[in-house]
Amino acid sequence: MDTYTPTPRTQVKRLAKRGVYDKSQVHAILDEGFLCHVGFELDGQPYVIPTGYARVGESLYIHGSAASRMLRTLDAGVDICLTVTLVDGFVLARSAFHHSMNYRSVVVLGKARLVTDREEKLLALRSFTNQILPGRWDEVRQPTDQELKSTSVLALPLNEVSAKVRTGGPIDDEEDYALPIWAGVVPVRTAVGEPLADSRALPGIPPVDTQRFTRFKKP
Amino acid sequence: MDTYTPTPRTQVKRLAKRGVYDKSQVHAILDEGFLCHVGFELDGQPYVIPTGYARVGESLYIHGSAASRMLRTLDAGVDICLTVTLVDGFVLARSAFHHSMNYRSVVVLGKARLVTDREEKLLALRSFTNQILPGRWDEVRQPTDQELKSTSVLALPLNEVSAKVRTGGPIDDEEDYALPIWAGVVPVRTAVGEPLADSRALPGIPPVDTQRFTRFKKP
Repeated sequence: MDTYTPTPRTQVKRLAKRGVYDKSQVHAILDEGFLCHVGFELDGQPYVIPTGYARVGESLYIHGSAASRMLRTLDAGVDICLTVTLVDGFVLARSAFHHSMNYRSVVVLGKARLVTDREEKLLALRSFTNQILPGRWDEVRQPTDQELKSTSVLALPLNEVSAKVRTGGPIDDEEDYALPIWAGVVPVRTAVGEPLADSRALPGIPPVDTQRFTRFKKP
Repeated sequence: MDTYTPTPRTQVKRLAKRGVYDKSQVHAILDEGFLCHVGFELDGQPYVIPTGYARVGESLYIHGSAASRMLRTLDAGVDICLTVTLVDGFVLARSAFHHSMNYRSVVVLGKARLVTDREEKLLALRSFTNQILPGRWDEVRQPTDQELKSTSVLALPLNEVSAKVRTGGPIDDEEDYALPIWAGVVPVRTAVGEPLADSRALPGIPPVDTQRFTRFKKP
């Protein structure tokens, strides 16, 4: 089994059985998500900013305006933490104390690298678009040189990585199982709804088929 | 209109029209969410950890095992950033460059305070449970003194706060509107599925009514 090597910083200590370092499981979580939260420090204050991302092999890419504070800070080579969280269910126990959530999360530590190679930058941009809707990149107008220049892309290597996963039902205290209280899991999922065309849509163009959003369930 | 005062750290600079400081809008975002990402620094490395939360007035509460690294670090009074993000839609444009997401996010900066008062701690725990499923707290076994002791609760005041909101369809370049490409918004929502009772459920207890998850759509 191909795994990431836990470091003192990524070793899951509490509830260690929830720790996952298997690369294929980490990749599966990253490929199902589309939103990450990036943490970095600026003038002694931590910031956590939501942004889209895409995985290509053992690299994660994020992007944004070349003018954004986050991108300018990160491209200076600072230490960052990138976290992706998927919530799978609410775990309702018989006691308040044992309520929980089922989830899968990945935490990546490292320094981001500014992508300057044009081909790598295009690959990353293609991947952002296709991370949301597979195949979308090939349907739309490609970036101009000016658009490429005004977009910063950062790469974060998947080196120092851990995942944490909780699955299954509630674990109640033995004496609580006699209580007449419903307990179990209420599944949670991210779903897409019916596409809404914009006000300047040309006549006769069919909406995107929501079945193409393969990561998501239809509501 | 009652608003949070932007500081140099929370003033939304890029795309400033997306910045929101109105308290009622910030509260509405926080009350619709249930998962936050908490950023803090430890030995020079930023960490971003997902966890549940609840809002009570102008305080956010988070909790965890008294033994967790995050809780022990935060209760030392360090600077943190707590971010809540709700994704509302994928914005599909005619050009790759103008693809976007509709979202509502709240960023809170500050120092967390360890909650030691028993009544405040119970109020926070009640709020966590009811943030997920309104009314659940009154249905389940209440915490014992031992359970209370083994749970740490931290409070973060809503002082230095900003929200960022994007709504509406894609904004394409004028010449791209003539392209025969579907463009618009694909709604995204968090939905709950059918409850799954655990393996030790007593006979005759009806499952929780998913209509009670008022923040979520049924799939």
